[in-house]
Amino acid sequence: MSSQASAERARARSSYPYHQRITTRWMDNDIYGHVNNVNYYSYFDTVVNQFLVERGGLDIHAGEVIGFIVESHCSYHSPVAFPQQLEGAVRVDKLGNSSVTYGVAIFVVGSEQAAAVGSFTHVFVDRNDQRPRPIPAPLRAALQGIATG
Amino acid sequence: MSSQASAERARARSSYPYHQRITTRWMDNDIYGHVNNVNYYSYFDTVVNQFLVERGGLDIHAGEVIGFIVESHCSYHSPVAFPQQLEGAVRVDKLGNSSVTYGVAIFVVGSEQAAAVGSFTHVFVDRNDQRPRPIPAPLRAALQGIATG
Amino acid sequence: MSSQASAERARARSSYPYHQRITTRWMDNDIYGHVNNVNYYSYFDTVVNQFLVERGGLDIHAGEVIGFIVESHCSYHSPVAFPQQLEGAVRVDKLGNSSVTYGVAIFVVGSEQAAAVGSFTHVFVDRNDQRPRPIPAPLRAALQGIATG
Amino acid sequence: MSSQASAERARARSSYPYHQRITTRWMDNDIYGHVNNVNYYSYFDTVVNQFLVERGGLDIHAGEVIGFIVESHCSYHSPVAFPQQLEGAVRVDKLGNSSVTYGVAIFVVGSEQAAAVGSFTHVFVDRNDQRPRPIPAPLRAALQGIATG
Repeated sequence: MSSQASAERARARSSYPYHQRITTRWMDNDIYGHVNNVNYYSYFDTVVNQFLVERGGLDIHAGEVIGFIVESHCSYHSPVAFPQQLEGAVRVDKLGNSSVTYGVAIFVVGSEQAAAVGSFTHVFVDRNDQRPRPIPAPLRAALQGIATG
Repeated sequence: MSSQASAERARARSSYPYHQRITTRWMDNDIYGHVNNVNYYSYFDTVVNQFLVERGGLDIHAGEVIGFIVESHCSYHSPVAFPQQLEGAVRVDKLGNSSVTYGVAIFVVGSEQAAAVGSFTHVFVDRNDQRPRPIPAPLRAALQGIATG
Repeated sequence: MSSQASAERARARSSYPYHQRITTRWMDNDIYGHVNNVNYYSYFDTVVNQFLVERGGLDIHAGEVIGFIVESHCSYHSPVAFPQQLEGAVRVDKLGNSSVTYGVAIFVVGSEQAAAVGSFTHVFVDRNDQRPRPIPAPLRAALQGIATG
Repeated sequence: MSSQASAERARARSSYPYHQRITTRWMDNDIYGHVNNVNYYSYFDTVVNQFLVERGGLDIHAGEVIGFIVESHCSYHSPVAFPQQLEGAVRVDKLGNSSVTYGVAIFVVGSEQAAAVGSFTHVFVDRNDQRPRPIPAPLRAALQGIATG
């Protein structure tokens, strides 16, 4: 697959198995009238963690294993703005022993092409000593369920 | 009505004519595991501005008149946390020539009692010279539609 | 003291014994070009918690007692905007057994009159059962040190 | 230069010609007790825009040309947390006709090694039609002043 074909695929709604509604907020818009670039990462964080809580049994309050982000990236294709309604989408691009790299995307509701496409990598660590730990079985099963390729 | 009865009424879902879904975000939770007190004001801001845009024709990008907040308040009754789904609610408590005071509340979806109750006051001003201006007719009509008493 | 004299005093730099620098951020500005009303509460939260950590030994990561906010308020007097440099200021207005009400204010650096004045109330609770607990002695001593009247 | 040497250089304080103090905020910490990954992008945004305003004469309120972010990235090396004091740092890695790619980094005050390293790309566009425009001369001169290589 060419690099361009890969980029187009990353923007397609159908490339993502898990979608979730995100309501924009008044203060998401910056002085230029669009959602500030920073907030996209909050959308990414939200869709991934909601997936992990709902499907993988992640206990953010008291679980032994928590996910630390070691890398993140975003390409912004077209601006969005409050009060538009959005959707966050996620798939798993790479699943390791302790780490997982997600492909994430933001869509305006009703659109087939992502407004922004990104990725980020979680390393799962022990909540106390913060050393890497194997991904717990229920989480791994959930992640495998949205893995591509 | 006694002060206690008034406070109870302010927490009742039925006291608010306009409701709107708010999705929480991962980073709304603070180190203590609940939505940080600051974010409630973002929810208030959002529900009011969405109402003004949808029902009152407020043009946040280019309209001549914009709303400045001069005062705000919140009472926190019970904690909420990501990934709970919320609703923002608004009513108009006082409608002046250039200003309006809203009663606002945040509900966990499905709950009849607000988790937090607040108020804030908009003064409408000219976008350029920032002096108070009468509330434009379409906005006023929308605000009257959710006025109490 | 008249209500007006009290309001003027609340805006005076000299009314606050503890000050702290706050750097504004690009995204603090909203679509209207000023710091969004919500962010003032983040400034309040920050100046108070930094005081509690530095002077009162509050351990936000593992301490047995944590502060929950039950009420907050802000009056906005004059707009501020990124990239202005600000100062947060705090004093203790009321000190109870388990709770404390702070007077807080935001100044543009170099200004004697607050751009915004607010208050909020912390109830100290057990981190685990979240029931009110007496304010620990070192915290109480720190709070008494910035109490007015 | 090897990839590892390049990565080490990107973390060195001396690789960045422009530094700026950033005060952390209470709500920057997330439920895991560290500054949330999202906030680093706000720090990046802030240090770059403050540089552009101070040194390059960028007028964020009324200037004809504004910067849109088309891509951003961050590698997180070691956690930071409120109430630590931070510094944002920036250099220009690539300067085109309408676009500029910045290298950015976040340091704990006093540290020689960055806690996080990132990059982002601004395309300068007309505020009204949002089409790319050549970077104005004063901005270009400022950017050249912090260009590497």
